[in-house]
Amino acid sequence: MDTLLLNNIKDVRHNIENWKKDGLKIGLVPTMGALHNGHASLIKKAKEMCDKVVVSVFVNPIQFGPNEDFDKYPRTIENDKKVCEEIGADIIFAPSPKEMYGENKKLSNIDLTFVCPPYSLVDCLCGKSRPGHFDGVATVVLKLFNIVTPDYAFFGLKDAQQLFILKNMVKDLNLNLTIIPCPIVREDDGLALSSRNTYLSAEERKQALTISASLRKIESLYKQGITDVSTLFDTALSILDKNTELEYLEFRDYDNFEKVSNVKNNTLIAIAVRVGKTRLIDNIIV
Amino acid sequence: MDTLLLNNIKDVRHNIENWKKDGLKIGLVPTMGALHNGHASLIKKAKEMCDKVVVSVFVNPIQFGPNEDFDKYPRTIENDKKVCEEIGADIIFAPSPKEMYGENKKLSNIDLTFVCPPYSLVDCLCGKSRPGHFDGVATVVLKLFNIVTPDYAFFGLKDAQQLFILKNMVKDLNLNLTIIPCPIVREDDGLALSSRNTYLSAEERKQALTISASLRKIESLYKQGITDVSTLFDTALSILDKNTELEYLEFRDYDNFEKVSNVKNNTLIAIAVRVGKTRLIDNIIV
Repeated sequence: MDTLLLNNIKDVRHNIENWKKDGLKIGLVPTMGALHNGHASLIKKAKEMCDKVVVSVFVNPIQFGPNEDFDKYPRTIENDKKVCEEIGADIIFAPSPKEMYGENKKLSNIDLTFVCPPYSLVDCLCGKSRPGHFDGVATVVLKLFNIVTPDYAFFGLKDAQQLFILKNMVKDLNLNLTIIPCPIVREDDGLALSSRNTYLSAEERKQALTISASLRKIESLYKQGITDVSTLFDTALSILDKNTELEYLEFRDYDNFEKVSNVKNNTLIAIAVRVGKTRLIDNIIV
Repeated sequence: MDTLLLNNIKDVRHNIENWKKDGLKIGLVPTMGALHNGHASLIKKAKEMCDKVVVSVFVNPIQFGPNEDFDKYPRTIENDKKVCEEIGADIIFAPSPKEMYGENKKLSNIDLTFVCPPYSLVDCLCGKSRPGHFDGVATVVLKLFNIVTPDYAFFGLKDAQQLFILKNMVKDLNLNLTIIPCPIVREDDGLALSSRNTYLSAEERKQALTISASLRKIESLYKQGITDVSTLFDTALSILDKNTELEYLEFRDYDNFEKVSNVKNNTLIAIAVRVGKTRLIDNIIV
C-alpha cells in the first residue's frame, strides 16, 4: 500500500478533515523515526484498531538536552517509509523543526509555549538526569495531537514514565482521545528494542544484555514471594555487568507513580544504565 | 431563549458532539462570571459569528496568587444566567474546581500538567506582579478549548497581554480554532468595565477615572505627532490621581510584544494601577 509522506501540517490537516467527514477512526503513532520492530508493533496495533493510521517521524529538538544525542540520533526516513508501507500506514508525517516550531524562535521557554507535566511525575527516573526532557515530549505530543486529532494514540511501554506522563496529560488537559499502551518488544536474547541500540559495539551489546537479565531476575524472585525492594535491588545490581553504570533502578506503583518499598501487582520496575557512552532504559511491570 | 446551565464536562461534551454532527459552528466565551456589558459584547459577537454559543463561568483558582482575591471575587451565577439568556447563549458551563482539576490533587505544578507561555511574553506587564498567573490562564483556557472544541473563541482586549499570550498559544500548540479579539467596553465616563470595579468606593471610583483619562491624553498627543515614550509616560503620570499607585505603564508593539521607545501604529499602551486595595488595568492600541 502507498504511504503518503507529508512534511507540512496543512497537508496533514487536509487529509484528516476528509477522513473525519467520512466518520473514520484515526490512529496516531508518534515516533522519532529509525523505526524498528517495536515501532512496527505500534503501527500494527493502530491498523487493527483504526480506519486510518498516521505515523509521525520527528526528532524533536526540544526534548534533547544540550549534551545529548540530538545530532547523532539515527535518521532513516527511506527505511521508515518502507516499514510504514509494509504495515499499511496511511500517512508518514515528517516535518522539519521549522515547520513544527516556526522560524526566528529560540527553541526554549523564552520563546515557546510549553506543556509542563507535574513535578511529582517528572522529578524522578529519566526526568532527574534529563531536565526539561518531559516538557519537550509533552509539548511536541500535544502539538501532534492537535494536528492529527487522533481517536487513539499508541505509545510503547518501554518509555514507561513517558507513557504515564502522557496519560496524565490527556486527563489533566481534557484531551478527547485514548492512549493505547503497547508492550515492549525485545530481541530474542532479551534486549529491549531501541533506536539507540545501533550505538552499541559488539562488546557493549553483550554488557547491555545484563539489563533485561536483572529485570527478569527481579520478576522471578517476586514470583517466588520476595517483595522487599532493597533485596530485589541488590540482587539486580549483582547481575548487571560491572562495566556498565547504573543511573537508576526504581520500584513504583504504576497506578499513581509513587515509590513502593514492597513490590505488589502493577509495580513498575524501571532501570536506566549507561553502557559505554550509550544510555539505555528498560522496565517490567509485574 | 433557554440557556442550559451545565456543571459537568460530560454533559457539555454530549451537546457539543450533537452540534458537530450537524456541522454547526461553535463559539466559546470564557469568563470568570460576574458578567457585565463587556462580557455581553463578547457573547453578542459570538452569537453573530457562530451557530451555537457556550459561555464558561469559572473562577479559576490556579490563576490567582496566594494573596490575591480568589475568595472575594464576585460570584453572581443567577445574574450571569440571565445575561446569557437575554443574548441567547446556548450553554453556560459553570464547573466546580473539582470538576476541572480532579480530587486529591494539589492545585500547583506539583500535581497538575500546566501550559506555560513563553517567558518573553509573561515576564512583563501583569505577569511581573502576578507570577504564575498566565500559566494558570493558559492552562484553564486550553482545557476549556479541549472540552468545548470551539471554532471561535472570544476574548476582550482589556486583558491585552492575556489575549496576546493566548493567540500565541493557539499558534505554538497548533490549535485548530480562531481567537476573536473584542474591543474594550467602557462606562460613559471612560472607566473600562471590570468585575473588580464593584470593589471601588465612591471616592476610589473617581480616582480610577484618571486611568482612562491618562490613556486618552497619550492618544491625543500621539495624534498630534508626539511619539517619544518618555514624554508620553510623564504626561500620563501627571494626570493619574495622586492617591493611586502606578504599577506599570508600558508601550509595546502589538505585533511582537517588544518594547518601543517611539509609538507607532499598532502600539499597545497598557497600564496597571492600584486604587485603594483594588488593582485595575486598562489599555489602548493606537
